[in-house]
Amino acid sequence: MVPPELDEGLPLEKAGEFSLQELLGMAIKAEIGAKKFYKSLAENMDMEALEEKVKWLAREEEKHEKFLRELYANMFPGEEVVFPKEHIGPELKPVARELHKVEDIIDLVRWAMKAEEIAAEFYGRLEDMVDTEEKKRLMRYLSNMERGHYYTLKAEYELLLDWTMYSQMMNVGP
Amino acid sequence: MVPPELDEGLPLEKAGEFSLQELLGMAIKAEIGAKKFYKSLAENMDMEALEEKVKWLAREEEKHEKFLRELYANMFPGEEVVFPKEHIGPELKPVARELHKVEDIIDLVRWAMKAEEIAAEFYGRLEDMVDTEEKKRLMRYLSNMERGHYYTLKAEYELLLDWTMYSQMMNVGP
Repeated sequence: MVPPELDEGLPLEKAGEFSLQELLGMAIKAEIGAKKFYKSLAENMDMEALEEKVKWLAREEEKHEKFLRELYANMFPGEEVVFPKEHIGPELKPVARELHKVEDIIDLVRWAMKAEEIAAEFYGRLEDMVDTEEKKRLMRYLSNMERGHYYTLKAEYELLLDWTMYSQMMNVGP
Repeated sequence: MVPPELDEGLPLEKAGEFSLQELLGMAIKAEIGAKKFYKSLAENMDMEALEEKVKWLAREEEKHEKFLRELYANMFPGEEVVFPKEHIGPELKPVARELHKVEDIIDLVRWAMKAEEIAAEFYGRLEDMVDTEEKKRLMRYLSNMERGHYYTLKAEYELLLDWTMYSQMMNVGP
């Protein structure tokens, strides 16, 4: 079931139908969306240890947004960022409900994993499209970071599936 | 070239020659080593943005150490943790020199990536060796987390290779 915070978006294959400028606009929009999603997720859940991870993800996506805005300004000087209405992969939207059941959180984390995975591939595509080694490096950076997020979420996801163990483990932490 | 902070360790294949208790001891030792390595790395470098990431990694490894000690205590009640002198994969040791050249940092990050990658596989092996679904889950958690660290480091590594760009990008951040 697709939760209300999510729009499944276009498959990655559709990326070829957009200009680099549009794709960068989508990427910035996606980072903003992910940031808001993680922030709101943290606010609406009541699991301290996971909350910390999710807040960290929100801060990471905020940095990515800034990098991309810099790149955009550098490539299209003086132009406002255009956000296409389309987006590649799951679009994460703010969570506007309190999450009491662990199942709701599990569901959102699974979708976030999907979004991170596609984002990693999406930046891989953009790497092929940008022209300088510097820009390619930035895309590889973002791609690797999103893949890192994917595994971080995957780790939490596995534990969430066994909530009792999760809560025990997390009490051990500092 | 292998830096002084590093011992290449045994290949993963050797894991089969140790008992589960010994392997857990190695895992705890490895987490302690990684924690100290990342802490000391952060202290000896002068690159704020990377420092933050590295400190985060140190905190993560510290949590893993605690999880593993809990598991050990649960599996071998009343027994002291035995740290075998052998270890699987690169053993990270504290950095006891100031790192001025970006090349030195690049070198250490590359080895840390290798250590994280093997740690992810190592926990995969332990997953097969432990008996309950709960313990298997914990191993999967650790494996995924270490893989997440690998990609986080990989992202930074790519940028370090182009230090000029790195410093520009990081000034953009908050």
